[in-house]
Amino acid sequence: MNSKYYKPFQPSVINFLNEIADKYPSAISLASGRPGDKFLEQLNPERLFQAATRFQQHAYGEARAAGSRLLQYGRSAGMIRELIAQQLRLDEKVASDPERMLVTTGCQEAISLCVAALCPNSDDVLLACNPTYGGAVGAAHANGVCVIPVSNDTSDLGESIERSVAELKKIGRKARALYLIPSFDNPTGRDLNESQRNAILTTCTRHRIVVLEDNAYGMFRYEGRAIQPMAALDTAGVVIYLSTFSKTLAPTLRVGAISLPETLFGDRRRCHALWKNLVERKSYSSINTSQISQAIVGGILLQENGSLERWIQPALSCYRDNRDAMLNQLETVLRPLSGDISWNRPPGGFFLVLEVPFRFCQEELINCANDYGVIVMPMSYFSLDDSQDQRIRLAFSGTNSNQIRAGINLLARFIASRLDLNGSAPPLLAEVSSPP
Amino acid sequence: MNSKYYKPFQPSVINFLNEIADKYPSAISLASGRPGDKFLEQLNPERLFQAATRFQQHAYGEARAAGSRLLQYGRSAGMIRELIAQQLRLDEKVASDPERMLVTTGCQEAISLCVAALCPNSDDVLLACNPTYGGAVGAAHANGVCVIPVSNDTSDLGESIERSVAELKKIGRKARALYLIPSFDNPTGRDLNESQRNAILTTCTRHRIVVLEDNAYGMFRYEGRAIQPMAALDTAGVVIYLSTFSKTLAPTLRVGAISLPETLFGDRRRCHALWKNLVERKSYSSINTSQISQAIVGGILLQENGSLERWIQPALSCYRDNRDAMLNQLETVLRPLSGDISWNRPPGGFFLVLEVPFRFCQEELINCANDYGVIVMPMSYFSLDDSQDQRIRLAFSGTNSNQIRAGINLLARFIASRLDLNGSAPPLLAEVSSPP
Repeated sequence: MNSKYYKPFQPSVINFLNEIADKYPSAISLASGRPGDKFLEQLNPERLFQAATRFQQHAYGEARAAGSRLLQYGRSAGMIRELIAQQLRLDEKVASDPERMLVTTGCQEAISLCVAALCPNSDDVLLACNPTYGGAVGAAHANGVCVIPVSNDTSDLGESIERSVAELKKIGRKARALYLIPSFDNPTGRDLNESQRNAILTTCTRHRIVVLEDNAYGMFRYEGRAIQPMAALDTAGVVIYLSTFSKTLAPTLRVGAISLPETLFGDRRRCHALWKNLVERKSYSSINTSQISQAIVGGILLQENGSLERWIQPALSCYRDNRDAMLNQLETVLRPLSGDISWNRPPGGFFLVLEVPFRFCQEELINCANDYGVIVMPMSYFSLDDSQDQRIRLAFSGTNSNQIRAGINLLARFIASRLDLNGSAPPLLAEVSSPP
Repeated sequence: MNSKYYKPFQPSVINFLNEIADKYPSAISLASGRPGDKFLEQLNPERLFQAATRFQQHAYGEARAAGSRLLQYGRSAGMIRELIAQQLRLDEKVASDPERMLVTTGCQEAISLCVAALCPNSDDVLLACNPTYGGAVGAAHANGVCVIPVSNDTSDLGESIERSVAELKKIGRKARALYLIPSFDNPTGRDLNESQRNAILTTCTRHRIVVLEDNAYGMFRYEGRAIQPMAALDTAGVVIYLSTFSKTLAPTLRVGAISLPETLFGDRRRCHALWKNLVERKSYSSINTSQISQAIVGGILLQENGSLERWIQPALSCYRDNRDAMLNQLETVLRPLSGDISWNRPPGGFFLVLEVPFRFCQEELINCANDYGVIVMPMSYFSLDDSQDQRIRLAFSGTNSNQIRAGINLLARFIASRLDLNGSAPPLLAEVSSPP
């Protein structure tokens, strides 16, 4: 089982994407799950430093040498834990406690620290959906931790987990944690409903598998009733909640957080020991998260009375429009091409999945970028096996609706050529305007 | 050998130090190797903002959406590599090349990434001086890498390395890297001369051991002729150079760098493969170093025409005075106490070593803080064995000469009590002023 699933350390999707974007600078990109540039511009340097100053004033008042405090080394656990806990309570309904929290250099460091701490032995295994965010698999592999895929296609993840646990038992290995993005998954956009979430909690509690809930996209819901994060549904002490300000504020801040439950499977001391272990690991990974970055996040949270709901409204509304533009264009130009092409309608987040009736991997990505002027992500980049080789991740967050329509048209031309249907491809939009 | 030397994952010195400082807030601290607060204050939020803006202007001019670039995700290898390479060439005489460089979240991440990349197998070993910076040992242990100590006391480190290599060979293990602070070592203040550096290079080249040269303190020389970093002396491709802006600019920035040699033991392709491996690991550790932090460093480097020599002058001059104040006070109050007390005169850096004729470990540290009002660091915290149990690290960077004199007096009272010489202790200085 190990040899089958364990991929050796491999090139990161992020770096490969950068190389492609450099090589084809004029291509339209539907590949990157970054926030829209225009929502970042509200955080120009002046505003950043106003925010830092606001936090400084709040934390230290007019105290002498207040300024230097932010510039010094700081606590490995972080200095804005109260404010982050408040934001998680207000915006995510997660009962986060500053004493069980750890501020990290983005969510990526949070994942890396948790995987290393939860899977210290060579027979420990991390479960992860297949496909899943490549950074989680990469972090596990970088820490020498084996990753076993759990199918992301089934509606019953709990059952898939049961099967993986049984298989692992046969070979004497143990699943210690499950990495999961329950809300608006990267890369699939899939949103688990409450009963699915509860089923996973039950299964993981039974097998003492910690759920690493990555909720990077949870605040970006475009339709339907809010579903609580698994950390809010958890009563057994099974969920570690991972959060980030990269999507709500700005990626550059590199501020995220790990929130531990009140107990770990009912054991309060074990939970505190894990927190201490994580803080130690944090100190050996990056000493502490930049206090300037923390002060910027803290200052914005103070200004917004603790919640980011108002702050993200313009982005939320734009991403919803982008999603709708993408869904409409897929309907308009791909539906007529073939009945074998399908896609999902994600109720939130940054991504959707397109399924095509042919292989779409690295070769096809390059072909698309080079000959058709559009960059999209093969789902195989997020996969631990070959089950995703006919799927594409389409991102609608970092662009605008004109570009989305033009990009989908270009992609349709490529697909038509692959299906030998060249006459059916739509004409290029007469004008493709660049983002405002 | 393994069981003898391999200490399990243990509490970090940094976190313990914070706890002690919290518990005894009025105690004078000679424990922390942080930059002096007053030199950080020249980087108030307004100046930080100016620096980031200067870099933005330099990098993007008036380009549309320039602002958002700094706020987005960025390259894992970093965006200010040219400026850092220039600074290393100007200030350290290290022939750094941006194409072989990687910007990291402080030097701590640099150490962690290098140790993990160079020691991927379970029988790979990291050599480290004993005592050494605890963060290096912690990073190795967090990555599951065994650390074997090399005596830091001998003047012939090359010979100590030879002995370690021979012993490791007997048990089928291999030293892959040596972590070393050649200039003004933390915690000892020891400065290796050029022939010592060359001897280590020869030994490490012969055994294909990569030298991880941590040069955090190199620019802080108070006397004597400059000695080139080992990376500048290296002609065989054996030294990976680790640098940081935590001591020269501010710890909060969390910006450091890894500079690889032109070849790795003569092999250019292997060196490039290592660089790519490190960039991958960086992407899985923290995606990229905050571009705001990078822009601040970049803006200051632009303002200073590439060199930080002028920038650090006030700090350099203060630290020199602090060192001299500490040496004078040791001479005045400790010399008369006992002939069995000794200390070194470091030609630079932030630290010196005091040796006492009794055990000084955690119990004594707490005793000192609680009953005498002075906090100092037992050298045992930096040690892989019990050889350092009668030594103390004294830091003179983060305080002022009045506090240093008062702190040494308090320490002298403690030492006198331990030596049963209570009558000989100096009176407390009448006035201990707080830092300006």
